[in-house]
Amino acid sequence: MPAVPTILTDLNLRFDHAALAPEVNELAIRDLCSAAILHDLYAVCVNPAWVATAASLLRSTNIKVVSVVGFPLGANRTDIKVAEAYEAVEDGAREIDMVANIGWILSGRFTDVETEIRKVRRQLPPEVLLKVIIEAGILSHDQQVEATKAVVSGGAQFVKTSTGFFGGATVEQVKILHAAGSGQIEIKASGGIRTVEDCRTLLAAGASRLGSSSCPEIMREFGRLFGN
Amino acid sequence: MPAVPTILTDLNLRFDHAALAPEVNELAIRDLCSAAILHDLYAVCVNPAWVATAASLLRSTNIKVVSVVGFPLGANRTDIKVAEAYEAVEDGAREIDMVANIGWILSGRFTDVETEIRKVRRQLPPEVLLKVIIEAGILSHDQQVEATKAVVSGGAQFVKTSTGFFGGATVEQVKILHAAGSGQIEIKASGGIRTVEDCRTLLAAGASRLGSSSCPEIMREFGRLFGN
Repeated sequence: MPAVPTILTDLNLRFDHAALAPEVNELAIRDLCSAAILHDLYAVCVNPAWVATAASLLRSTNIKVVSVVGFPLGANRTDIKVAEAYEAVEDGAREIDMVANIGWILSGRFTDVETEIRKVRRQLPPEVLLKVIIEAGILSHDQQVEATKAVVSGGAQFVKTSTGFFGGATVEQVKILHAAGSGQIEIKASGGIRTVEDCRTLLAAGASRLGSSSCPEIMREFGRLFGN
Repeated sequence: MPAVPTILTDLNLRFDHAALAPEVNELAIRDLCSAAILHDLYAVCVNPAWVATAASLLRSTNIKVVSVVGFPLGANRTDIKVAEAYEAVEDGAREIDMVANIGWILSGRFTDVETEIRKVRRQLPPEVLLKVIIEAGILSHDQQVEATKAVVSGGAQFVKTSTGFFGGATVEQVKILHAAGSGQIEIKASGGIRTVEDCRTLLAAGASRLGSSSCPEIMREFGRLFGN
């Protein structure tokens, strides 16, 4: 067996294991949490209606619960995003993946984007990480750069490429976000990540967190490749 | 020119003209409202962040603004759906298209579905119509029937087939919803409606409202067919 490449060390701890489709029910949340425990993943990522259920299932583990907010369109009122984030933390979320207002980004309203992010950030306890999704796949290069700067200025800890509903993360996007962030923010790549090679290339491009609904499949492939 | 078939009389007044994609910005909302005025459509349907803008643009017309709520996944906390609906009305929405908790429907939790709908309904003024989306395309026949009954019991005025993000309305679905509703509720068909023939078949199956992002194209085809 080959040695694990340095970039793939502790790959399991890079993963937010996601179940975000409309058909997710309690059984799917149980499966999600079981898989996260089996493979010792970093976190599970769920819609707000399922945060309390996931938090309860994972109570005796170190696995975090991530709640999405304003997901997946981002076109909600700011006060509703703030309230949704607040309630998610009350329900047990330790990280928030919020969608920015993509229409504002496309119209160059970056100050409004930043202000909205800051309002959500202010409602969260300091230890709760805020990730902001910019849906990079429908933005130009310059819009990705300016959006990343707004996410940094708004006080978020991560910029996240995609919801997964409108195309997946690319290496090119991660490189753009990583360069624009100038080391002031981490990058979460998500959408369409299904193989160990997808993970390797996205991590090499600058991502430090990976969102996927295929984490068990990826970890099984990792085991076959490296015998872990 | 042939005469307009009875089922297509006042077709323009059947339409909620929708712009719900993440990339919608203020320019797209202006285009949407202009088209609604040009073709004298019944309503425009927008995400919550754009309700106030659309209401302002349509202030001097009879065209209603519809806001979606919990859209498009339906997997939000009930209190957030209630708050989002309330704020949308404050912003000028005259109808609310809310997504039911699809995971609950798939698990047979119809009492929870009904209770959630009733909580939203109670927050709305009597004159504001509530439509509930059940995402019929991912439900079985029996789930569509039971979900429609829960929507009726919850006090909504319409059951709506689909968000448009996970497949469109079919004639079969509309027939199922219409039969299950027993005349106690109206049917809105939405998703994938792009031609006058689509409209005719869905109205004939029992729909009384149609949601589409292609209303101008449909009205132009209508004009070519019937000279209106």
